Amino acid sequence: MRKCYFDHVATNPLHPDVLEAMMPYFKEEFGNPLSDLYEYGRTAKIAIEGAREKVAGLVNAKPAEIIFTASGAEANNFALRGIALAKQNEGKHIIVSRMEHHSILNSARFLEKSGFVVTYLAVDNKGFVDPDAVRKAITKETILISVTHASSEVGTIEPIKEIVKVAKEHNVIVHTDAVATTGNIPVDVKDLGVDLLSMAAHQFYGPKGAGALFIKQGLRIVPLIYGGIQETGRRAGTENVPAIVGMGKAAELAQKELKSRMEYLRPLRDRIIDSMSAVKNVFLTGDREKRLPGHVSFCVEFIEGEAMLLLLAAKGIFSASGSACSSKALKASPVLLSMGVPAGLAQGSIVFSLGMGNTSEDIEYLLQEFPAVINRLREISPFAEGWGEREGGGECTVTK
Amino acid sequence: MRKCYFDHVATNPLHPDVLEAMMPYFKEEFGNPLSDLYEYGRTAKIAIEGAREKVAGLVNAKPAEIIFTASGAEANNFALRGIALAKQNEGKHIIVSRMEHHSILNSARFLEKSGFVVTYLAVDNKGFVDPDAVRKAITKETILISVTHASSEVGTIEPIKEIVKVAKEHNVIVHTDAVATTGNIPVDVKDLGVDLLSMAAHQFYGPKGAGALFIKQGLRIVPLIYGGIQETGRRAGTENVPAIVGMGKAAELAQKELKSRMEYLRPLRDRIIDSMSAVKNVFLTGDREKRLPGHVSFCVEFIEGEAMLLLLAAKGIFSASGSACSSKALKASPVLLSMGVPAGLAQGSIVFSLGMGNTSEDIEYLLQEFPAVINRLREISPFAEGWGEREGGGECTVTK
Repeated sequence: MRKCYFDHVATNPLHPDVLEAMMPYFKEEFGNPLSDLYEYGRTAKIAIEGAREKVAGLVNAKPAEIIFTASGAEANNFALRGIALAKQNEGKHIIVSRMEHHSILNSARFLEKSGFVVTYLAVDNKGFVDPDAVRKAITKETILISVTHASSEVGTIEPIKEIVKVAKEHNVIVHTDAVATTGNIPVDVKDLGVDLLSMAAHQFYGPKGAGALFIKQGLRIVPLIYGGIQETGRRAGTENVPAIVGMGKAAELAQKELKSRMEYLRPLRDRIIDSMSAVKNVFLTGDREKRLPGHVSFCVEFIEGEAMLLLLAAKGIFSASGSACSSKALKASPVLLSMGVPAGLAQGSIVFSLGMGNTSEDIEYLLQEFPAVINRLREISPFAEGWGEREGGGECTVTK
Repeated sequence: MRKCYFDHVATNPLHPDVLEAMMPYFKEEFGNPLSDLYEYGRTAKIAIEGAREKVAGLVNAKPAEIIFTASGAEANNFALRGIALAKQNEGKHIIVSRMEHHSILNSARFLEKSGFVVTYLAVDNKGFVDPDAVRKAITKETILISVTHASSEVGTIEPIKEIVKVAKEHNVIVHTDAVATTGNIPVDVKDLGVDLLSMAAHQFYGPKGAGALFIKQGLRIVPLIYGGIQETGRRAGTENVPAIVGMGKAAELAQKELKSRMEYLRPLRDRIIDSMSAVKNVFLTGDREKRLPGHVSFCVEFIEGEAMLLLLAAKGIFSASGSACSSKALKASPVLLSMGVPAGLAQGSIVFSLGMGNTSEDIEYLLQEFPAVINRLREISPFAEGWGEREGGGECTVTK
């Protein structure tokens, strides 16, 4: 049976060149980078500094502005809570969008318990944060705005540059969660103008266990993990040298291949969207154009996402419903709800996220099997009475 | 030139069997454990749960009591701050020893800034924490005691069982930092009686990037990293599957080989201690008997630790002075100072930590080269006037 992995927002396979770059650090070069008075340590130190340069290069930052973490989630926690603590004397108001990943939303809730006030910004029916809404939300107490660069659930790419412009009129720090975008679309910290930016290596064919936070030079931040003097005292713990080296290599490859990767993925994505949008009761979520190159997300009326996942998996098609981090919760995705998708329809969410291992044959196989799965579930759905009353499919334009 | 790696407290080489166990998860089994509705994710999920069983087995815990982290430092931060926040309504007093790793001490300082009161317990001249001192330090406000299982700087194994006994008379939670001991000496959470215990895979021939915190069943803790529902909601971030699998394999090997590893290392350690203790102006730090099996630490009078490291490194002997996490600070080790070692003498700290790759030939090479290094540095030392006035070497019995 054909196996089609369409869940690249959950995680990516490792690029073979990345693994090759990591291997020496699992073998002879096992040193601790802090122990650089002798050769094993020195080699490890040089390796992580080389990786830092490559990751910095990918996002147009300075190497000293890159702090390695163990995950995108850690980078997000570090950014929100680290800036909140560093700036709390200037104000205790934070703005985040309702499109954020759980690592942002739950960090924000933690801060609320610690006396901070958080505004959760609404989004429109395509998932866009309105820069004007940001402007209206800013108060004299606002110290930080965090908006995702792109939602991994609906693929919408947010107008970060415009949000930064508004924030800077009021001298407010901006963080963006670029876990879904870094290595997949151009991410340039100078062009975006952000002060902090989170990324994760396994989202661009690098290893799990390596993430990073860009922190603009001169910006003070309180550490999330205290201990030794690793990462200039801002993130303690023995560096995961092989994973960091792998992140560096993945960054180097992504920078070189970014354009060709996007050009490869977009037509595959568009083929699915064009074909499925014509199917009855299937609604595209997120924006048609301003979306991640390999990202397709739908809601299917009268059908549960999990049921689709299981039937598709039985056919060797591996996809997601909602985000990987919440798929167990069996609740409608808060991201979709925030876009005004009705709870019932949001239950029928399905996300196909493509990667460089997918071929056009994979896509044709999906387009052959997916409607059959929908039909089969529709036949057994207790909610499908209204089925067929609606003409055509198309984009989900439900508004709040 | 012979290369002798004697810095196993900084990090260990990876066991080849561990790397072999990890490899499939860098290749075909790249799934996200949360995406377990399809096979890649399910395989990853099964793999990390298997690793959890093995790590639990190593310390005699239940699998559900093991939460994976990315490092020992993260586990220590999580334990201290997680319990502090969960218990702050019952009291805001915490007790730690002065022997603790920076990840404990700096977490404690962070908590002080948040309104907690911390008692830093003195130790005796061998580095032991006195359970009676713990008893005296406990107040009605005390919610947590954290004492290291063994210091990686002086090798002294602390009387955790006795400390727990005292703590339990007052119903106080006990955490131990077992990063230096787990996989190296018997570590049994039931026997020790602790509520929380930190460990790190790279300290027992596992990979960097994998640590764990044992949390006794039923104990409430506030997460350090918020986000998705990984690790039963207590530690977010996509699991570093290969590293976790590697930690599991390393735990399995350590459990099987623990006794033989200890029996292999102790005579090598004792050979160094016996030989070097006879050298003038060389003082053993820590206890002679109750110390880590592969751990040797000295202070050499009138000589700087870093100078010794460099000359030894030139001869292919790789060692440490103070802890890896602070060796750059060029300050006398706080651990040695807390034991009452005078600042001048503490500057001459050197640590040889042995591992399974070391042979008795390595030891003889060290014993041949180390005195020569001392003599050479002594000749150029501006502080060596008093040299020779003191009879013999021996243990450092300086008292406060």
